[in-house]
Amino acid sequence: MTPPPVTVDADRLWSTLMTMAEIGTTPAGGVRRLALSDEDRAARDRLAEWLTAAGLTLRVDDLGNMYGRRAGAQADAAPVVFGSHLDTVPTGGRFDGVLGVLAALEVIRALNDAGLRTRVPLEVVNWTNEEGARFVPAMLASGVVCGRFTREEAYGAHDPSGLTFGDELARIGYRGEAANRLRECTAYLEYHVEQGPLLERARTQIGIVEGIQGISWNRIEVTGRAAHAGPTPMPDRRDALVAASRLVLLLRDGAERLRGVRATVGRMDVSPNTVNVVPGRVEMTLDVRSSHDDGLDAALAAADRACARVAELDRVEVRRTEFWRSPATPFAETVISAVAGAARGRGFSAKRLWAGAGHDAKYMADRFPAGMIFVPSKDGLSHNEAEWTAPDDCARGATVLLDAVLVLAGAV
Amino acid sequence: MTPPPVTVDADRLWSTLMTMAEIGTTPAGGVRRLALSDEDRAARDRLAEWLTAAGLTLRVDDLGNMYGRRAGAQADAAPVVFGSHLDTVPTGGRFDGVLGVLAALEVIRALNDAGLRTRVPLEVVNWTNEEGARFVPAMLASGVVCGRFTREEAYGAHDPSGLTFGDELARIGYRGEAANRLRECTAYLEYHVEQGPLLERARTQIGIVEGIQGISWNRIEVTGRAAHAGPTPMPDRRDALVAASRLVLLLRDGAERLRGVRATVGRMDVSPNTVNVVPGRVEMTLDVRSSHDDGLDAALAAADRACARVAELDRVEVRRTEFWRSPATPFAETVISAVAGAARGRGFSAKRLWAGAGHDAKYMADRFPAGMIFVPSKDGLSHNEAEWTAPDDCARGATVLLDAVLVLAGAV
Repeated sequence: MTPPPVTVDADRLWSTLMTMAEIGTTPAGGVRRLALSDEDRAARDRLAEWLTAAGLTLRVDDLGNMYGRRAGAQADAAPVVFGSHLDTVPTGGRFDGVLGVLAALEVIRALNDAGLRTRVPLEVVNWTNEEGARFVPAMLASGVVCGRFTREEAYGAHDPSGLTFGDELARIGYRGEAANRLRECTAYLEYHVEQGPLLERARTQIGIVEGIQGISWNRIEVTGRAAHAGPTPMPDRRDALVAASRLVLLLRDGAERLRGVRATVGRMDVSPNTVNVVPGRVEMTLDVRSSHDDGLDAALAAADRACARVAELDRVEVRRTEFWRSPATPFAETVISAVAGAARGRGFSAKRLWAGAGHDAKYMADRFPAGMIFVPSKDGLSHNEAEWTAPDDCARGATVLLDAVLVLAGAV
Repeated sequence: MTPPPVTVDADRLWSTLMTMAEIGTTPAGGVRRLALSDEDRAARDRLAEWLTAAGLTLRVDDLGNMYGRRAGAQADAAPVVFGSHLDTVPTGGRFDGVLGVLAALEVIRALNDAGLRTRVPLEVVNWTNEEGARFVPAMLASGVVCGRFTREEAYGAHDPSGLTFGDELARIGYRGEAANRLRECTAYLEYHVEQGPLLERARTQIGIVEGIQGISWNRIEVTGRAAHAGPTPMPDRRDALVAASRLVLLLRDGAERLRGVRATVGRMDVSPNTVNVVPGRVEMTLDVRSSHDDGLDAALAAADRACARVAELDRVEVRRTEFWRSPATPFAETVISAVAGAARGRGFSAKRLWAGAGHDAKYMADRFPAGMIFVPSKDGLSHNEAEWTAPDDCARGATVLLDAVLVLAGAV
């Protein structure tokens, strides 16, 4: 297969990325661009300029999602949509999210340079509040568009200082029309940095994302008996922290024995949490991820066996409650194939993998054929000011995006 | 050996105890009588009445410590001093501290009833702020009397609302004269509930306390690498909480292998402590206790080996720093013998043990011959509204106190 006669401009992409990174830049070289902040507004304004300059028709919906549309030969066909988000976590980097938006812009610029039209329209998208760092939950605006949340839920979400999503959206001038929401879509593609170490370690250039892992969030409560650290002999103790510690190790071992499962105890709160008192109670969280829902179930069954074992060994009560679950979301075979074909066509090394983190592509996949492209993250780092993806890697991903979009949208 | 012809009145002691428990009583049947609070003042006022009514000469020193003196045949001899404290923790019980003060009063009443004089004077003492629950540190006033802290340190100590020890002492009318401080002492005896389960479990009536355990407080910092719970494969993680958990279990095992050592991880703070982030850092405390200073040293050496092992296994950094140490304090053989002889003389079952918690007797032992008497605590509970010691047990301890005081002070 000969590569199509159109190609992204690696230098232009990089310089666009670095220009955007000047908005909200941190002393350590990262980016702080919280959703609906002044920095987010500045980034949106700049993006709007660039999209318009590239000939796209811009519209903003009632969640602040921005869409830049390029007409297709079939004017009324459902568009191929691609993009990501401009917002960051408080100490974020220069690639997470923004790479997908600006590579989408670069795809448009490259098509313009080549004078190439597509059969169906194209739309570049910037989703509002993907990170969930300012307004909980994450992926809030794509979630409304895809029917996961109501607009009222989104508008009512408030940041730690009490400001609401709705008010902040209006304040920065990005509260558009509900009629502007995305309603139909031939395919959705999101290009993103991996945020994990697999591609880098395998010295592989492109990640063909097969889906987004299922996630189960659980609360585990361990109840023992608080006692004086001084007068209480070791064999008499019902130490909730000793029990919780044993459980952490069993959960880790259990996850390592199950293929494709990840388990994390991320939070632990000890009570009374005092130097000279044997802990009476520990509350902790368990995050389990798997690319298959029966992976989640197997991991949770193993977790329950571990809880029972600890309860017996350490004479404590252990209770696990699942408080949130997001099922595994496989991507559409058409989109996966378009990505795989594009990578193969360009001679890039590629590897199939599952996304471990959430992305707007998850909610989009509930309604439309969707997929993702990953490129390596140095040391697997993200949500970190030191986040880094090399210029060549950025360009390779954009090239795969370009080619896959052409396959999905049809070149004319 | 025939018991001396004097005996405590078990009913009077119990009714005195229960009367005092009405001051600061909680809905759950415990006591809240924080140092220098209105409740503490009311308890002190009542004690002052009782001491005076029993013929004692009351004086109050500049720390609010109350001494009730009964003259001896040798007017100028150093007194035998015995007592404890009236203050409690916020949800305390009816026995911790107050039993030692009111049993001391009962000893005086019993001697009065029997018309018995002693060779050296007797002094009943109520120490201010033993618990440290309102003003840190604990045992503050006995610590000043014994030269461990300055009066300025004590006066400057403040409660969580910012009120100082000095001001509150004046407010409740118990700021006396420095000249009234205890300056000499033939022997000091403190009668207290065990606060642990050993006597109850051994079905033993009297604890002959050999000393107060040494305590070492340590901070342990575990540094791994924070990472996304989603995209980070299990083998890539440097999870500080997995490492800390392994350490908790190794520290527990290590302490169980060393005779007479207790080790407690009472506090653990996880960072960033978020459900979906692999913990990058854990800070925890280690409380080690032993009746011998080389027990402390052996336990800390074992702790360091455990830290090194965890650092290697889990690829984290582990650092231990001791931030406070209180050496083991053996009691005086003369006082221990007096207690042992008294228990034996009355035919009470008795057992030698070490106190695991701090008591005013610790600072007194730095300056004077000192010792303690324990009686059983139901289920080993203390600092708890459910604290319980049966009337018979209370009376037996008071009887041992009486007989030991007579031995140490000499009956005439």
